Parts: sequence; C-alpha cells; structure tokens
Amino acid sequence: MTRFVGVRDMVRWVSSRGPEAVIAGMMDYLEEDFRRWELFDKTPRIASHTPYGVIELMPTSDYDKYAFKYVNGHPSNPARGFQTVTAFGLLSEVHNGYPILLAEMTLLTALRTAATSAMVARRLANPDSKVMGMIGSGSQAEFQAFGMRAALGIERLQVWDTDPAAVRKLVRNLEPLGFEVKVAESGPDATFGADVVTTCTADKALATVLTDAMVAPGMHINAIGGDAPGKTELDAAILDRATVFVEYPPQTRIEGEIQQKAADFPVTEFWEVVAGKTAGRQTHEQITLFDSVGFAIEDFAALRYLSEEVTGTDFEIEIDLVAEPEDPKDLFGLIDVLSPVH
Amino acid sequence: MTRFVGVRDMVRWVSSRGPEAVIAGMMDYLEEDFRRWELFDKTPRIASHTPYGVIELMPTSDYDKYAFKYVNGHPSNPARGFQTVTAFGLLSEVHNGYPILLAEMTLLTALRTAATSAMVARRLANPDSKVMGMIGSGSQAEFQAFGMRAALGIERLQVWDTDPAAVRKLVRNLEPLGFEVKVAESGPDATFGADVVTTCTADKALATVLTDAMVAPGMHINAIGGDAPGKTELDAAILDRATVFVEYPPQTRIEGEIQQKAADFPVTEFWEVVAGKTAGRQTHEQITLFDSVGFAIEDFAALRYLSEEVTGTDFEIEIDLVAEPEDPKDLFGLIDVLSPVH
Repeated sequence: MTRFVGVRDMVRWVSSRGPEAVIAGMMDYLEEDFRRWELFDKTPRIASHTPYGVIELMPTSDYDKYAFKYVNGHPSNPARGFQTVTAFGLLSEVHNGYPILLAEMTLLTALRTAATSAMVARRLANPDSKVMGMIGSGSQAEFQAFGMRAALGIERLQVWDTDPAAVRKLVRNLEPLGFEVKVAESGPDATFGADVVTTCTADKALATVLTDAMVAPGMHINAIGGDAPGKTELDAAILDRATVFVEYPPQTRIEGEIQQKAADFPVTEFWEVVAGKTAGRQTHEQITLFDSVGFAIEDFAALRYLSEEVTGTDFEIEIDLVAEPEDPKDLFGLIDVLSPVH
Repeated sequence: MTRFVGVRDMVRWVSSRGPEAVIAGMMDYLEEDFRRWELFDKTPRIASHTPYGVIELMPTSDYDKYAFKYVNGHPSNPARGFQTVTAFGLLSEVHNGYPILLAEMTLLTALRTAATSAMVARRLANPDSKVMGMIGSGSQAEFQAFGMRAALGIERLQVWDTDPAAVRKLVRNLEPLGFEVKVAESGPDATFGADVVTTCTADKALATVLTDAMVAPGMHINAIGGDAPGKTELDAAILDRATVFVEYPPQTRIEGEIQQKAADFPVTEFWEVVAGKTAGRQTHEQITLFDSVGFAIEDFAALRYLSEEVTGTDFEIEIDLVAEPEDPKDLFGLIDVLSPVH
C-alpha cells in the first residue's frame, strides 16, 4: 500500500499545525537539501506547452529517495473558475522503485514556495527588515506573508494588485492572524519604504510590475512570478543593480527574470550560500534579488518533510497504487485469485 | 475530485470482463492512437538510472488529453520479493491541466504490452499461425498468451524458462483457461515449429535467448524483453534476416534489440503500417520482428480505454488529489475555513 495525503488531509494538517509552523519546519528540510545540492540527480523540468498553458513533470533524486511533481500552469484558469496551478507529487524508494507517499501538492507547493522564499530571505534580507511590499495578491500571497514572518518576523505588509477583490481577500485572510496590512494605491505605493519586496503576479507576459525607480538600496527582492519562458515581472535595469541569486541556472536562464539577459549574465547559485562556499548579502545597502522559478529539489524537501511529519497520523490514508502479488513472477495470479468466474 | 482505479478495482475489472476481452478492447484504442501517431507530442522517456535499477516518467499528449506513466525496472527485485516492474499513471485535461484519472498501471502495463504485441501480430504474423513459442515465463507471460489468442486465435504454447517454477506457474494459470501448454526442455525446443515467438526475459544483460538457428522462415518474432540500454535478448544475426518494426525509433535505437546495430539500421515505424503508409508482412516466408520497448502513446491509449470503460462504475473511487477552492485566487482560504483553531 502507498500512503496518500489528499487535499482534505493536507488542509487538516496545515490547519492543526498552523501555516507558519509548517513553513518554519519545511525551511530546515530545504536548507538541508540545498546544503547537499551537488549530490542530487538534477534535470530541467519536462514541459508540455500548449496555447492553454503548460503541464510539467519535475523529477529529482538523492539516490536514496526519488521524487517528482506533476504541475500545471494555466493563466486563463481563474477566469474559468479553475486554479492557475494545481499539483501533486510522489516520493519513492530508489532501491526498489516502489512509491512511498502520494500527496496533493497545490497547497504543498504554495507552502514550499513560501518556505524557499523564506529560507533565502533569512540569509539575504537585512536582519532588521520590518516591512514587505507585495505586488500581486493571488493564491501564493498569504503563504509568502507567513514565510517572511517565520524568517524575519515581518508583520507589516503593503499590498498592491490590479484586482481589488484579490487584495480584499488577503486582508480578510491575514488581518485576523496578526498581520498589519496596508492596501496600496499603486505598485510604487506598495514598495515605498519596504525592506523586502515580493513580486508574484500570474500573467504570462513580459510585464514590468517592478520598475527600477521602485527599488531602493538595501532591499531584498523576492521575485517569484517570473517563472516561465516569456513570463517576467522586473525591469531589466534592476538586474544590473542587484546581486542575483538563483536555484538552478540551466532552468532559471530559460524561465526566470534573467531570461531578459545574455546567457553569461552573472548569477550566484543559492545552494553555495547555504553550503558556505559563497557570501550572501555583504553590505546593508546592497540590493539582493532572488530570481526564483521553483526547482524539483524544493518539492523533494517538501515531500520528505511531509512524509516524516504525517507518518502514523490520521493525516494520511493508504491507497492500493502498486500491485503486490505474493509471488512477484505471478502478476496474473492476482486476477485468477479474485475472479468471480472461478 | 479525481477518479482513481487502484489495484483491487483493476483486478475486479479485469476479472469481471476477462483478460482476453480487455486486451481485445484495448487493441482498438491502440490502433486508433497508432493511426494518428504523428499528431502526438512525443519525447523519449525521462529515466533516473541507479545501480539498483531505473525509475522512468513517460509523458505524451494528443493536445486534448495528457498522460504520463511512472514506472520502475529493477531486475533484482523478484529475488527480494518485489515486482520487477511497478507502475501507475495519470490522464489529465490539456485545456486546464486538471487530472481526470489516476490508475495503478502494474497490471494495466502488462495488459497494454500484451495488447500492443497482439495488435502488431494481427498485422504481421501469418494469419494461419497456430503455435507460439515463449522464451520467458515471468510476470508478462500469461498476458502475452491472451493477447495472441485475441489477435490470432493461438491456443498452443511451447514455453521455456530457466526457472522451472515460473513455467509451472504459467501452466497452472493458463491450462484451466483453454490453453494447451507444452513445457519445453530448452529454448530451441520451445521455438521449434512455432509460428510466433515471444521473447520476454528480465535479465539486464546482453543475452542471447534467441539464436539465429532457432528462427525459421515465416516466423513472427515478438521481442519484448530487450527494452533498456544494455538489455537485449536476440542474436544480432536475426536482425539482418528479419524485417524490423519499431514503435519510436529515437527510443528503440537506445533501448531495443537494434541497439546492437548501427544508428542507420533500417527499421519500419509500425504506426505507418496501421496508417496504411507502409506494407506489413509481404510474403509467407518473410521473417517479421517487432522490436518492442514500450512507448508512452501505448499507455495513453490504455488509460483512455480504462477511463471510458470504468466511468460511472464501481470499479473506480474518487480521491481529493486537486484543491478546488471556491475562489481560485483564495487557496489560503481552504486552510482558514476548515481550521479547528478558528
């Protein structure tokens, strides 16, 4: 039998632990896997692009466990009542190839994206950061807020979105949970005075939701919405002023903000910061930029964390995903044994 | 909610329909998808190789539906009480990326492999074929027997395996179901007088379970065990005497029997036979060879068939694989709504 964490159980688990505690716990697993980044089997995700959107498979392995995520990205989905991004994933044993844990990953991806942003901000943002400016108030926004509170203690948010209903939703969700939310009147109003800026919009376009003038010295920019070919959010001039940190360069050069730049544009792989091989932030005035696109190792860490957290609890059930005949050469015998005609 | 067909329900479905009827029905779906082969989004499978074995993801799409299969291949598994091959797969909607059907595919892969062999044999074997020689009596063997009975009416089997227990298992499973099984004393004894020869052994080695001398004019060879780099079953001389048919050349040249040959070794893509673009068998004496490695479009057809067959029946259940918040931008609201702390 394979363990399964469905949406209902994921919701129950996150609700009972609290999103901030889940994100904080996940950060430790992410740090551990970023520290041993080099040993993973890494490959760019395998994408099936259509005019509607994209369906991707993201596999990786540390040669003890294997994981992959199925994830779609369909910008036109919300207008039709569907999620832009839905996902599920699997953790399995490398030694025999058997699945261990299947899990919904729409929620888990939002949590791991926030935990990754938080892990990075903990090392790159100025430690006295108090205010986060947010451009984009969609599905990911609340999770990002909890991530930055877990990493930096940030409780003051300045939020801008072209959709006022999306901002109202964020206020409704976060104010009862201890956040102080300022509804900004524009992008510049949201970023003015911010220590950390998170950009997270969904349009599949070469947009400029963050202009160069909105970026002040000392800011940490958490750019998570530029994550597909033809989908960026930042003025290219910002990339020249900032120190740019990325997950996996072969993927980020295709999908991230740096797709606007030449193939040799200088970047720092963030795992090197975690592993102590490279410096993170070096001065208070430095602009740091995390050009995040999401990588399979983050899903691996999230599944590994989930697996250890829920094992033996009632947040998981078992499903019969894999046939287990008594005699492994007698797969056919499964049919005979249970056949109603014999 | 996502529809789910687990092992128990797959067993119940196959048992109630009967394996031969299932394979016969699947052949029609396979033919339909082979006929429109050109329009599919095709990519070689994505493999993670380790000394233990391989874990693969096999995606494809006809731009209406998307499917992928997770499958492992671990030759050392049976000795440790595990299946050599386990699998599961998913069918989803291209227009919004949402999963439709998750299914166990250990059994379904055995059925689709047999249905593919059967579809090919129906067009390539001599129509008066009466006897199948089988080299290898493992997990796949009984399914192959049902496939050839569905395609050609073959009821006489001559079976050889290095493991006598595996042959006894096949006799036990098939004799009550109308097959006449001769337990061969050697490989040549199994193939002597056979019209169709199926090779299906599991060793990950450059083996020669079928020598040139065992191949007689007019035979159709169904070579399904040579399906990974470094894993072949046939004497290379047979490839020169036979007309070789393959699924997807970029994959077969790496994984199939023809990995023993140069990159320009002549092959016929079987879909062209189905589409009427190329001849199949042309003379009674011709030796035809299906160098089968398994391709994602076959899994696509199998999942499509399963989906249509079980929809609305009690052979499926629903699982909550995908989050469906009422407001697609309010993913976080899922947590709040059900939280026991509010």
